[in-house]
Amino acid sequence: MNNMLHKTPSLLNDFSRVRNQTDILCAPLETEDYGVQSMPDASPVKWHLAHTSWFFEEMILKPFAKEYEAFDDAFSHLFNSYYESLGGGFTRAERGLISRPTVKGVYDYRKYINDAMSLLLSDHTHPENEEIIQRTILGLNHEQQHQELLLTDIKHAFSKNPLKPAYKSTPLEIHVGDIKAGWLSFDEGIHETGNEGSAFSYDNEHPRHKSYLTGFCIATRPVSNAEFISFIEDGGYENADLWLSDAWALLKTENWCHPFYWEKEDKDYQNMTLYGMQPVHPSAPVCHVSFYEAAAYARWAGKRLPTETEWEVAAQQTPVSGNLVDSGILAPTGIPNDSHQFYGDVWEWTSSPYTEYPGYQRLSGPLGEYNGKFMSSQMVLRGGSCLTPKDHIRPSYRNFFPPHTRWQYSGIRLAEDL
Amino acid sequence: MNNMLHKTPSLLNDFSRVRNQTDILCAPLETEDYGVQSMPDASPVKWHLAHTSWFFEEMILKPFAKEYEAFDDAFSHLFNSYYESLGGGFTRAERGLISRPTVKGVYDYRKYINDAMSLLLSDHTHPENEEIIQRTILGLNHEQQHQELLLTDIKHAFSKNPLKPAYKSTPLEIHVGDIKAGWLSFDEGIHETGNEGSAFSYDNEHPRHKSYLTGFCIATRPVSNAEFISFIEDGGYENADLWLSDAWALLKTENWCHPFYWEKEDKDYQNMTLYGMQPVHPSAPVCHVSFYEAAAYARWAGKRLPTETEWEVAAQQTPVSGNLVDSGILAPTGIPNDSHQFYGDVWEWTSSPYTEYPGYQRLSGPLGEYNGKFMSSQMVLRGGSCLTPKDHIRPSYRNFFPPHTRWQYSGIRLAEDL
Amino acid sequence: MNNMLHKTPSLLNDFSRVRNQTDILCAPLETEDYGVQSMPDASPVKWHLAHTSWFFEEMILKPFAKEYEAFDDAFSHLFNSYYESLGGGFTRAERGLISRPTVKGVYDYRKYINDAMSLLLSDHTHPENEEIIQRTILGLNHEQQHQELLLTDIKHAFSKNPLKPAYKSTPLEIHVGDIKAGWLSFDEGIHETGNEGSAFSYDNEHPRHKSYLTGFCIATRPVSNAEFISFIEDGGYENADLWLSDAWALLKTENWCHPFYWEKEDKDYQNMTLYGMQPVHPSAPVCHVSFYEAAAYARWAGKRLPTETEWEVAAQQTPVSGNLVDSGILAPTGIPNDSHQFYGDVWEWTSSPYTEYPGYQRLSGPLGEYNGKFMSSQMVLRGGSCLTPKDHIRPSYRNFFPPHTRWQYSGIRLAEDL
Amino acid sequence: MNNMLHKTPSLLNDFSRVRNQTDILCAPLETEDYGVQSMPDASPVKWHLAHTSWFFEEMILKPFAKEYEAFDDAFSHLFNSYYESLGGGFTRAERGLISRPTVKGVYDYRKYINDAMSLLLSDHTHPENEEIIQRTILGLNHEQQHQELLLTDIKHAFSKNPLKPAYKSTPLEIHVGDIKAGWLSFDEGIHETGNEGSAFSYDNEHPRHKSYLTGFCIATRPVSNAEFISFIEDGGYENADLWLSDAWALLKTENWCHPFYWEKEDKDYQNMTLYGMQPVHPSAPVCHVSFYEAAAYARWAGKRLPTETEWEVAAQQTPVSGNLVDSGILAPTGIPNDSHQFYGDVWEWTSSPYTEYPGYQRLSGPLGEYNGKFMSSQMVLRGGSCLTPKDHIRPSYRNFFPPHTRWQYSGIRLAEDL
Repeated sequence: MNNMLHKTPSLLNDFSRVRNQTDILCAPLETEDYGVQSMPDASPVKWHLAHTSWFFEEMILKPFAKEYEAFDDAFSHLFNSYYESLGGGFTRAERGLISRPTVKGVYDYRKYINDAMSLLLSDHTHPENEEIIQRTILGLNHEQQHQELLLTDIKHAFSKNPLKPAYKSTPLEIHVGDIKAGWLSFDEGIHETGNEGSAFSYDNEHPRHKSYLTGFCIATRPVSNAEFISFIEDGGYENADLWLSDAWALLKTENWCHPFYWEKEDKDYQNMTLYGMQPVHPSAPVCHVSFYEAAAYARWAGKRLPTETEWEVAAQQTPVSGNLVDSGILAPTGIPNDSHQFYGDVWEWTSSPYTEYPGYQRLSGPLGEYNGKFMSSQMVLRGGSCLTPKDHIRPSYRNFFPPHTRWQYSGIRLAEDL
Repeated sequence: MNNMLHKTPSLLNDFSRVRNQTDILCAPLETEDYGVQSMPDASPVKWHLAHTSWFFEEMILKPFAKEYEAFDDAFSHLFNSYYESLGGGFTRAERGLISRPTVKGVYDYRKYINDAMSLLLSDHTHPENEEIIQRTILGLNHEQQHQELLLTDIKHAFSKNPLKPAYKSTPLEIHVGDIKAGWLSFDEGIHETGNEGSAFSYDNEHPRHKSYLTGFCIATRPVSNAEFISFIEDGGYENADLWLSDAWALLKTENWCHPFYWEKEDKDYQNMTLYGMQPVHPSAPVCHVSFYEAAAYARWAGKRLPTETEWEVAAQQTPVSGNLVDSGILAPTGIPNDSHQFYGDVWEWTSSPYTEYPGYQRLSGPLGEYNGKFMSSQMVLRGGSCLTPKDHIRPSYRNFFPPHTRWQYSGIRLAEDL
Repeated sequence: MNNMLHKTPSLLNDFSRVRNQTDILCAPLETEDYGVQSMPDASPVKWHLAHTSWFFEEMILKPFAKEYEAFDDAFSHLFNSYYESLGGGFTRAERGLISRPTVKGVYDYRKYINDAMSLLLSDHTHPENEEIIQRTILGLNHEQQHQELLLTDIKHAFSKNPLKPAYKSTPLEIHVGDIKAGWLSFDEGIHETGNEGSAFSYDNEHPRHKSYLTGFCIATRPVSNAEFISFIEDGGYENADLWLSDAWALLKTENWCHPFYWEKEDKDYQNMTLYGMQPVHPSAPVCHVSFYEAAAYARWAGKRLPTETEWEVAAQQTPVSGNLVDSGILAPTGIPNDSHQFYGDVWEWTSSPYTEYPGYQRLSGPLGEYNGKFMSSQMVLRGGSCLTPKDHIRPSYRNFFPPHTRWQYSGIRLAEDL
Repeated sequence: MNNMLHKTPSLLNDFSRVRNQTDILCAPLETEDYGVQSMPDASPVKWHLAHTSWFFEEMILKPFAKEYEAFDDAFSHLFNSYYESLGGGFTRAERGLISRPTVKGVYDYRKYINDAMSLLLSDHTHPENEEIIQRTILGLNHEQQHQELLLTDIKHAFSKNPLKPAYKSTPLEIHVGDIKAGWLSFDEGIHETGNEGSAFSYDNEHPRHKSYLTGFCIATRPVSNAEFISFIEDGGYENADLWLSDAWALLKTENWCHPFYWEKEDKDYQNMTLYGMQPVHPSAPVCHVSFYEAAAYARWAGKRLPTETEWEVAAQQTPVSGNLVDSGILAPTGIPNDSHQFYGDVWEWTSSPYTEYPGYQRLSGPLGEYNGKFMSSQMVLRGGSCLTPKDHIRPSYRNFFPPHTRWQYSGIRLAEDL
């Protein structure tokens, strides 16, 4: 999409395609599934559907579409996520209490927005055409982020149900074969990272800038379940020396003894997936670990996590490919051959807290709230997961979550000093 | 129903009638409404529908119906409320996370149970016929309790939605005319209360027993909104002297300054009802007050709340009539003439903690968990509300909730020493 | 004291004696011990010393002593416990943060109050002499309550210290010999309870009133540790059927498996006492159990707890004697012979929630806050403990704590229906 | 001390001097002050005194001193802070509950450790002499950190007391005169930071390493109270656009509207200091602000906070001088002339999360827990405060606290891009 979305003629096509993809992802759901909010950090599917529409309404239609009438004035507050400059949103932890508008009502809202956006995007003579285009592209990237969250969140919701419903009813096929990890080396010196080129990117990927790095190695693939099970069996979760202080306190409180979604049955591990409960496959990348677990694993392995700069230096040599959502396999499967894998399967925790790059400039107005205000107490993840659209990910893409987060598709890549 | 339900021939009719009434109450709901749990104390409508069916399945069909096969083995745990002797239930606070079974699935479950029960009830030669009859009658009374809770809980859920949906779309008509409260007097001496007669009653209403009462007066009707507003305007919520210590601490934490569901607009009060937001009508009984507020009001008025014994002594002279759910007016409306009103509109807080009567015997087995284990830190309410079925209420009926509870249809009746 | 305190001539003597007794109880403490607050429900010793002085200052000296000047204006707020009509007190949970005034400063305050009170009590011609006398007597009873709390609280504080300091350094001698419990019977009919006579009593013991009781038996002594250990060993703490619903939830959360202060070492139990860690003696009354545990034990034993009326009907036949604080043995020891024991060793949970008697009148003004506002969600205990002054306890004395409370010296007496 | 402490001959002198300095800081305290713990993040003075002694006992005396006998075996657990490899410590939040050992007991402990250390340090022929020297130097730096914390924590404890006790009874004299802040510029390019030289430093200051910086300016002095009051008066605390998302949520919950310890009286601000309540002086550096407030102020001012690398590049040109604890003025006072001030008065929040430098190596064994395990969710502060010993601070010194922390002496220095 990066390449496509900035070409004006195809924007209307892209709009339809991305919006439609959201609907496709919802096809397996029952009406009752749309409303569940299983924790404050997750949102109901229905809310994702409405909020992504709200984004177009508030950011584009209300400011730019002549004689546009809001679909429902109450939605301005109800489906605002966190935009304080637009009046703030409905209580986050109570999104699951909103049975009305119904699912049908939300789809009506989506259609209303789609129609209005199509009309606006067809008016190439609009005096603010360029701003409309840029905001539409942002809105579509925003929608793609919510496509991933929608799947992440419905999995969490289903995991709370003792019936363990499956989102996908087709069988899950995992690639067999655990490719031995190799190492890529990079020399000490000045390296450049950050977004370049004219395709769409978020403000937080800018500006491209120089860093001085000491020499380092980085693994060619993420850590596998088999490797992580060795850590468990070696007492990794009982050895305080491996853990950050915050991590150890949380681990004790929460009784962590394996990745999130795992359950031990006799000697084997099962885990909740979008295919229901499934065996943990040894050669697939370990998933649903927190930064804390990633850091402990790395220390146990005698390695460390890469910084986000190191990750990007390594990854920017490799074209985007891998098990991304377009493959239709909605679980980490591991690399099919011995090529280097930087994208797909699992987001990879880096050792870098999420901060602004030197010279970073927030967008102005409400859009300035998109990224900048979250640069505190979060860690950067890189590479996209099996739920990420292929045209949404790139070497400079920065995802971020607090270090204890486990419900995201997050895994581990190792690095070490040369 | 009390009179009907213990006559065997009509039991099948009663079963159909009560079960059908639950369905009727759900008719105004959208599919999405069934799943919402707006607080741990409330349950989703869908859960009420399933749990009342579970009761018949676990208490009657599994032990007594030959060759009965469970509808779904997972429901045994999923829709158990609090019966530890049956293995305990699914986490109460997470009932709203269960999107599957769907609403249709739950109605299928209800039909399956109805069919199996009908078959069993038609077998008058069953060797344990009498126990089946008694448990069925209990199960129907249990279902009636959940009919009231179902409405109470959906009102709470709707109140959390800024759209303030209405359960009923017809206009709410309140009786106009504030009948001046009178007083009924009772002499000092030995009085008898507790259930007598052969109609159905709960174990906690037994045995009928003697109490020595000093002489007392009791009001002929509950306190009205107009009267309660006088309390508010006289600074009732700011005067620590009127409040119990626990109450004052809670009031300060929660910033209580009027009954639950009320909102002040300019000088007038609106409140959330099953008809959506409506004006607070002066002559209707005040509703959605906690025991704490009831006690503070009584102290402010220079009176006190009645004990449950006093209430029952007074009420057992009066036949059951009033604004009960059969009227179809799902809001407190007040008495239409100057007769004594002991039933309907609002449950009335008494000054009596919920304890066992002298000589009380719990039922044995799982049914023993129905009432007895809740006799701690709760207060008795009497008289039924506008959501209570008329054939469910009687002079000896004991409802009970913790003293801070406000989402129930609870009001105030005054008493004083002679 | 009841008999003594209402005779005016000796009041000054009583005042000195009771105030001095507080100092005597503090003699074993180090300066550092005075300031510790080990939980919000407990208070530092220093606070008890100051608050009991504050009571005389606010209730007597400020209103009645001519030209009295406050010791320190800041103390009016700092040492107020819960009297909202006097402006409310300093945050309860933060009493342990107040290092100044120092211990010496608080003793100076006590002396200042003692001197001012002595002066006032010597003025028999004061126009409000009778009110001063009555309030002084109340103040001394108040001080005696805090003497018991002071010991209860310092024991709790010491229990949090891994060094397990002993308040008393002398050896603890327990009476050996487990007298078999007998039963006392009482006939059905009207009984009178509540305070009578002219000696001091609290407002909550009044008025004396009639109750209709069905026939009952009551045990001649409290339940022993040996008996309670049988309950434990029979799986009492794992059997949900024995427990109230609130109790079972708390037990699961807090992992209760024996009385508070107990620790299991190998097969034997040790418990924290004012003599440091000591073996649990089989024949001593079980202590530091909550109402929940008392009720579960009674249900396990096939009995029940007595109502407070039953307890008082039985106890009012027996003169006050037993292991009270005057004995100097600051732990429950059990009865030395086979006489009936109603007083001392442990407070006994009754099945009665703490409510007002028929016709109860609160005191007016600030003193009205002494008892009445706590009549919610608490249970009545009777009989006094090994920390209670002998002249402080009587048949009609009502102590009260929430049902989960365990740090008080609370035990169990059984009853059953005739 | 850096220069002194690594010269062996004077180590015994340094040991006496630093240990004695702790005692001197405690001189103004009453016995009662030593035990107070006013929040889980703070510790009682008595605990600081014991823990710093524990450090020498566990890290040096037990492993190296022949025939050393522990002062009290229980102290090994009781005064362990967070060393999991030494068995873990007593519950942090309950340090204030430990009345025994008494203050005298802790001073006895200190003397016992001092004597044993003096003996050990006098044995220059010890086969592990070098390790003993290095650990002793670390222990003294550790003690200096606790000297600062001891003052920080007692101030917090005193602030909770409505009597607002003063630690210092002498008058506080503030430098008058608000020097206009200037700016220092640094060119784009490779810069080196991190500790160099042979004097003592912590592991987290290593290794010295290169960074590529874009050109930047940094202010010559911290932000003053007058400047921060302008931010307040311009609505800084009400403008969501200025705040990080976490910050805004916390600000709303905690009702922040000015720095910690400030109180508004009429139009002026007072603040709690070690001299009791004092006016907020306009020309003194603003103190007791969180990272959140520092970042919001910088955004309001159109600037940003410096990274820790920028700060160090700028500061390493300037010799250590300023209002450090050696001046005896225990409050921020501001710079006396127009020289550049990088040290003293207030720790300065940087925009850098606390992470490891490239090539960082933790110490092995228990000492490895000193710094490394805290590298998560904390921000780096630089420069020392008015409570920091002069020989404890240096350009490469990294202090760190969570971004919401306010009870430390933390202030703001601005930076901007060239």
